[in-house]
Amino acid sequence: MITSAANQQIKELKSLLTRPRERAKTGCFVAEGIRMVSETPPERIAALYLSESFEKKCREQAMLPPALLEKAVTVQDRILQSVSPEKAPQGILAVVQGRENTLAELTAGPAPLILALENIQDPGNLGTMLRTGEGAGVSGVLMSRDTVDLYNPKTVRSTMGSLYRVKHARSASLAEDIRSMQAAGIRVYAAYLGGSREYDLPDYTGPTAFLIGNEGNGLKQETAALADERIRIPMAGQLESLNAAAAASILLYEAARQRRAQGKR
Amino acid sequence: MITSAANQQIKELKSLLTRPRERAKTGCFVAEGIRMVSETPPERIAALYLSESFEKKCREQAMLPPALLEKAVTVQDRILQSVSPEKAPQGILAVVQGRENTLAELTAGPAPLILALENIQDPGNLGTMLRTGEGAGVSGVLMSRDTVDLYNPKTVRSTMGSLYRVKHARSASLAEDIRSMQAAGIRVYAAYLGGSREYDLPDYTGPTAFLIGNEGNGLKQETAALADERIRIPMAGQLESLNAAAAASILLYEAARQRRAQGKR
Repeated sequence: MITSAANQQIKELKSLLTRPRERAKTGCFVAEGIRMVSETPPERIAALYLSESFEKKCREQAMLPPALLEKAVTVQDRILQSVSPEKAPQGILAVVQGRENTLAELTAGPAPLILALENIQDPGNLGTMLRTGEGAGVSGVLMSRDTVDLYNPKTVRSTMGSLYRVKHARSASLAEDIRSMQAAGIRVYAAYLGGSREYDLPDYTGPTAFLIGNEGNGLKQETAALADERIRIPMAGQLESLNAAAAASILLYEAARQRRAQGKR
Repeated sequence: MITSAANQQIKELKSLLTRPRERAKTGCFVAEGIRMVSETPPERIAALYLSESFEKKCREQAMLPPALLEKAVTVQDRILQSVSPEKAPQGILAVVQGRENTLAELTAGPAPLILALENIQDPGNLGTMLRTGEGAGVSGVLMSRDTVDLYNPKTVRSTMGSLYRVKHARSASLAEDIRSMQAAGIRVYAAYLGGSREYDLPDYTGPTAFLIGNEGNGLKQETAALADERIRIPMAGQLESLNAAAAASILLYEAARQRRAQGKR
């Protein structure tokens, strides 16, 4: 059992939780809580830490598969608590191997539906977008280099497990990737306050990508200019903009709605 | 200038920021930052606090109307900083008179569109729902008693000013208010995982209310049972549920889409 905060494994765990650079270097991130850990494909769990009391609970209530439980390292309650960013940690943290896809993997298939994000800064927004994306049936989520780290603990939690199931890639150049998608026959729509057409008018049943920009500033003009079409979500009242994750929900589910309606025809 | 954290006004300000009971007792809340304060109707500002440096900036750059500036109390920078829940406070906080509506005010007009919330717990979710609600053109937002305080500083911020423009009421009994709405000819739809019809099939152009439940557990069964219809948002993948604010966005904008389409016919 680990009883010291100076333990090397605990130091690494803490580093993965707090330092994006450490996550980038190792390609690993931390999943916390019984629910997130249970959703993690077991082969991707590089290390599993349980607090002394949570380990006891796991054994008594058979909360984890035996093979995983055997892999677990027990840590004194207060040590694991001190590492966790949660207010009321359960006492279970896993080091998970990240898995990024290529753009080609995202866009495979007859009618891909891509969510492409530029400079999203709120970890909760990014996680929610993956989650809603899974629900709407996206083929993948493409993130600009300046988008917040998907493996940030807050983002991981707010995906509710979607990050294991939704293909995702970090783009070295969003402009280049937009052009590649267009060359592959994908029609690219920019969510843009000054967009010329209402979002529910285009036909999204073919290969489609939605571009969504930063929470405060929206898409960069030069990025919006690359799109095949700039669409706007009408807003009543005096609102300046919608929340980025709300905008993504509306667009993705409009595409999903059209695709279901087409399937029924 | 206030130079002590023990000052009575500063104590009250802190109490309004941190204690829901104090907000309920006084009917006031705190709006923070130049943007939120600028969106506040001036007649509702009961007190305005500026840090010494922000006051100087305001005067130099004419950031506030003179009448408001004259009302402001200057506070030593470090004192006002210590009160603010923000990581990087701007140095401007206003005590604002809350304004709740009655259910009748929410449902006035020929085809009301109501968002009714049960036990929403995340302040950011609630704020986002008001914001999206304004965009979709809701007539009002009704909140169950056990929904998080709308005047929580995090909620206030995430409304982006919508709380000044969207009518809202706290329900003494959600069940009774649902029955009142039905008696007034409003069709009540419950967003429910086990709903019998897909959300995009009903006609929302008439008087409509959407019921949305708690983030983790959804609507209580007995609340969902009161609805005229239980609808579901189809989900691809292995998702258990959508984020509550994402679900609200999808439903409200489906209603807005139908209403716009009807207007064009």
